[in-house]
Amino acid sequence: MNYETFFQTELDKLAEEGNYRVFAELERHRGNFPKATHYRPEGKRPVTVWCSNDYLGMGQHPVVLNAMHEAVERYGAGAGGTRNISGTTHEHVLLERELADLHGKEGALLFNSGYMSNWASLTTLASKMPGCVVLSDEGNHASMIEGIRHSRCQKRIWKHNDLADLEAKLAELDPAQPKIIAFESVYSMDGDIAPIAAICDLAEQYGAMTYLDEVHAVGLYGPRGGGIAERDGVMDRVDLIEGTLGKAYGVIGGYITGSHALCDFIRSFASGFIFTTALPPAIAAAARVSINHLKTSSAERELHQRQVARVRRKLDIMGIPHMPNPSHIVPVMVGDPKKCKRISDRLLDAYGIYVQPINYPTVPKGTERLRITPSPMHTDEDIDHLLDSLGEMWAECALARGEQVA
Amino acid sequence: MNYETFFQTELDKLAEEGNYRVFAELERHRGNFPKATHYRPEGKRPVTVWCSNDYLGMGQHPVVLNAMHEAVERYGAGAGGTRNISGTTHEHVLLERELADLHGKEGALLFNSGYMSNWASLTTLASKMPGCVVLSDEGNHASMIEGIRHSRCQKRIWKHNDLADLEAKLAELDPAQPKIIAFESVYSMDGDIAPIAAICDLAEQYGAMTYLDEVHAVGLYGPRGGGIAERDGVMDRVDLIEGTLGKAYGVIGGYITGSHALCDFIRSFASGFIFTTALPPAIAAAARVSINHLKTSSAERELHQRQVARVRRKLDIMGIPHMPNPSHIVPVMVGDPKKCKRISDRLLDAYGIYVQPINYPTVPKGTERLRITPSPMHTDEDIDHLLDSLGEMWAECALARGEQVA
Ligand SMILES: Cc1ncc(COP(=O)(O)O)c(C=O)c1O
Ligand SMILES: Cc1ncc(COP(=O)(O)O)c(C=O)c1O
Repeated sequence: MNYETFFQTELDKLAEEGNYRVFAELERHRGNFPKATHYRPEGKRPVTVWCSNDYLGMGQHPVVLNAMHEAVERYGAGAGGTRNISGTTHEHVLLERELADLHGKEGALLFNSGYMSNWASLTTLASKMPGCVVLSDEGNHASMIEGIRHSRCQKRIWKHNDLADLEAKLAELDPAQPKIIAFESVYSMDGDIAPIAAICDLAEQYGAMTYLDEVHAVGLYGPRGGGIAERDGVMDRVDLIEGTLGKAYGVIGGYITGSHALCDFIRSFASGFIFTTALPPAIAAAARVSINHLKTSSAERELHQRQVARVRRKLDIMGIPHMPNPSHIVPVMVGDPKKCKRISDRLLDAYGIYVQPINYPTVPKGTERLRITPSPMHTDEDIDHLLDSLGEMWAECALARGEQVA
Repeated sequence: MNYETFFQTELDKLAEEGNYRVFAELERHRGNFPKATHYRPEGKRPVTVWCSNDYLGMGQHPVVLNAMHEAVERYGAGAGGTRNISGTTHEHVLLERELADLHGKEGALLFNSGYMSNWASLTTLASKMPGCVVLSDEGNHASMIEGIRHSRCQKRIWKHNDLADLEAKLAELDPAQPKIIAFESVYSMDGDIAPIAAICDLAEQYGAMTYLDEVHAVGLYGPRGGGIAERDGVMDRVDLIEGTLGKAYGVIGGYITGSHALCDFIRSFASGFIFTTALPPAIAAAARVSINHLKTSSAERELHQRQVARVRRKLDIMGIPHMPNPSHIVPVMVGDPKKCKRISDRLLDAYGIYVQPINYPTVPKGTERLRITPSPMHTDEDIDHLLDSLGEMWAECALARGEQVA
């Protein structure tokens, strides 16, 4: 076996399919979000980022940065160990308390990423509970899918956000069998939202645990940023709420919240929690301050929703097709991988607009899109420039327009 | 199924076996490593940390902290996206270049932790290469084991550091079959070191790829901190070198290095790389400066080895049993889980010394130990206090002593 040849052949295949990814190299500028510098072989260029998941620009908020500076000043850089072996600091404990409070739960557990919190928690729950079956929404994120897969438990995939299908699958199972319904609140590629209360009704009826990923909702929805479950008043009905500190909170890290026993169980058995260096105290401090800020300030959320609505309205006026949804994610539909890539490249090169193309396998073939994430820091002028540029690209690529709304 | 009862019952079992873990809550103090504050229900107490994996105290080195401050000041906190969707910054690119250079490889790929780099890389390699078999040292870390397990590839576990057993297992396999020999350089619990060159000889003879975890060696060995493979002059013979930024480099993160095609392959196919928020640019900057510093400065490594030798010599003089090994890890052998925990508790409460007990399942039953990690910042007085305290505990617990060396 020639390993090098094997790797290269697989990469070539990817390129032929149009799925080889080249990362855009950026430089963020504190205080200047969403403006950034794009590094290219030919030199540097200013761009406006339209696809960041730092949804509220909290990654550059002065209170967050001050907390990070202060913590570096006080404690230094890394944690220096796993949570069990010298890596638990006061800042980790404070952050876990803040997270439990955010979701109105008894406990919380911090991981190095949202990917890890999903993977490690689902693996642990599903492999440790004898005979466990996971009922997984077909739209679930890779980190949940890999966690379920790794546990080697039984699984049932239910149709996306489809209560009837979920119920049919629950009804087929042994009532005594442990069951986990795993789903998200805001789905990141389509921006649609799960009917959490109705799923909790079914969970209660059929004796299932509920596992909810609020990665694209925490900080953004609910009076204190507790997510869609908070907005809908159902946080107490969900057994486990999972989230990230790397998107609306602008830092990095993942977590779960739930009962004392649930969090302690995962703390005690999850390999992906136990055998890894803890997050730096300065990261924990910055995340805690970010959460805390968004618990009391709704200004960011309101301006966010205003700019999202503005982008949508302008798209409608111009007849540029976008997937309707009740969230902050604006999927502008291109429906062709090559055109999607071409528009993205041209926007970057000719208009100083960075929005990554989203192609198969991240989304189904034929639904290729530009996933636009307006923030409170995008000005009305930024929006006008984005829309004008999209309009020109739509003409250039001879893409269909819908009816133009007045 | 009552989920709460299930979790609580499992936790109770753990407690009965003596394996329920309570984390020590610490506060690190910049510039004062290895001194820390221990938070206890009764109040705060100063302690000396003797079990940190911030082996060289780089997590508090001024050049590292300055780099972190400066990067926060320039770029803000988080990266704001996955590497593919707006999360690749110039700092990530610079760090990957530094890592490739450190190990003399064409490429490098950054992950959010060493756990993730092992898990994601092994899973991807072993599941994508048709018919792949992984030959895994029985002492390998949980992150490698889980990665291999997740790939569902064939595997052969060879006896720890046993070349004859590895060869016997290689010889049994189909010569055409893709093979990965997965092992570590410094094993973290026993502190012994793999015969890398001889393993590479076998790999060449039998057409296997070599996958080497240098997590407990990078920064610490080799003229530029490239690890044991650098020290032994065999970096170019190892196909993939994996490491962490969270131990000797004092920050957080993991990585692999290897050929362009190898890194690009894992970049393109590893779920655990693709679907997660990138590390903050400030973390990347701090890690890069730490690596860079240890490439040119050997003072930390020399003082480290001096203090390790001093601890060992004093243990010998007092006849306190410790596992002999050629590394910086000093396993003081207790051989009883309850005594191990009791000594650790007493050291913390009565002597201001923090060293976490290491019990089953982290180490085999009967080999319970205190894993002591001296650093260049532990003074000779710190060492004397540790040894005096250990001596008293040895008497108090009526533990056997070896012959006292003069
Ligand atoms: C739904 C969902 N869950 C989990 C994650 C992983 O979170 P993190 O980026 O913190 O690893 C992501 C995205 O990255 C996501 O979209
Ligand atoms: C041998 C080994 N590999 C990998 C890891 C994981 O590295 P990290 O702490 O960066 O996740 C560890 C310890 O945590 C380890 O001991």
